[in-house]
Amino acid sequence: MKLYDMRVAPNPRRVRIFLAEKGIEVPRVEINIRAGENLEPGFLAVNPRGVLPTLQLDDGTVIDESTAICRYFEALQPDPPLLGTTPLDIALIECWNRRIEFDGGQPLVDAFRNSYPPYADRAVPGRSGVAAIPALVERGRARLGEFFTVIDARLRDSEFVAGPTFSLADITLLCIADFARALKLTVPEGIPDFLRWHATVSARPSAQA
Amino acid sequence: MKLYDMRVAPNPRRVRIFLAEKGIEVPRVEINIRAGENLEPGFLAVNPRGVLPTLQLDDGTVIDESTAICRYFEALQPDPPLLGTTPLDIALIECWNRRIEFDGGQPLVDAFRNSYPPYADRAVPGRSGVAAIPALVERGRARLGEFFTVIDARLRDSEFVAGPTFSLADITLLCIADFARALKLTVPEGIPDFLRWHATVSARPSAQA
Repeated sequence: MKLYDMRVAPNPRRVRIFLAEKGIEVPRVEINIRAGENLEPGFLAVNPRGVLPTLQLDDGTVIDESTAICRYFEALQPDPPLLGTTPLDIALIECWNRRIEFDGGQPLVDAFRNSYPPYADRAVPGRSGVAAIPALVERGRARLGEFFTVIDARLRDSEFVAGPTFSLADITLLCIADFARALKLTVPEGIPDFLRWHATVSARPSAQA
Repeated sequence: MKLYDMRVAPNPRRVRIFLAEKGIEVPRVEINIRAGENLEPGFLAVNPRGVLPTLQLDDGTVIDESTAICRYFEALQPDPPLLGTTPLDIALIECWNRRIEFDGGQPLVDAFRNSYPPYADRAVPGRSGVAAIPALVERGRARLGEFFTVIDARLRDSEFVAGPTFSLADITLLCIADFARALKLTVPEGIPDFLRWHATVSARPSAQA
């Protein structure tokens, strides 16, 4: 099996952290999205959708959604559990992971992809010929700012995002937050509970993956 | 428990079909998003995020992402399985479900929410004060048309979306496709394998849920 990866991109990092928490090693192939390597024939022959991360199994089967790759490894090796074990934990981890993707991740992608010159005609991940829409930058920034305020309030009441234990929802939030900071996108002031959480999860060895 | 629902909306329908396939009945409360009932104090007291579907448990806990509600019931009552049982099935169902949401569902929401007059200042589900961006309508329509062509090719090789058995990925595709048709949004001509699949899944009793 091979993991097609990009070091600085947030979704591939989610999978790397997940694997590090499980202690699983998978051979990596670095693909540079910025340089358009994901849309070159070599990679499109592996995955016509042109997105990362992509896990290719030995029989050629492709799994190209971060959470699907995570679920594959969770099912192969349940310990330590990162997607929940009881019905309620399973549901709350999925729910928080989705909220973070929808209320934080999508605005981040909107603000980034529609303003970054190399993506002027690749405003949707994995695709060419989709023109940037400048109005999405402001919408994305505004939603992202509100998202961090909501997450800060959540972390006032909960040690980790989805409850008392570390889960995929924490991994997703960490990758989004660090990518937003790297881009100097809005991370509001006055969010002490988020910062406490951020220091805790950043200190885990997996955060270096 | 209570399911806050909206009869004509695609995401609540996903959960209703899922529950019908499982033979589970949950009391429903109809909330009219178009009339803004999801942003009135009564519903915001249940779920400050203002989105549907929302499952409220008897202790007040809220699960407000469709797939999270589905995972909750899958874990409570695994039969019939709709989210896979082997690691590979689990991964492929999640992967196709996500692809359908990202490549089909998001474009549909973009095209609809940014062109429908009642949502002129509610262009993002569950939120007020987000202005429509007209350029997203054309982007959404174009992506949606391409999505149906890709899905048609997939269904040429596979009886159901994620493989030989019916799953949540089929439910998601059915709800998106029927909503796109109801809105007279692009469903291209010449997609016979999609139409064969559509007739099959529409004939299941759960499609009426």
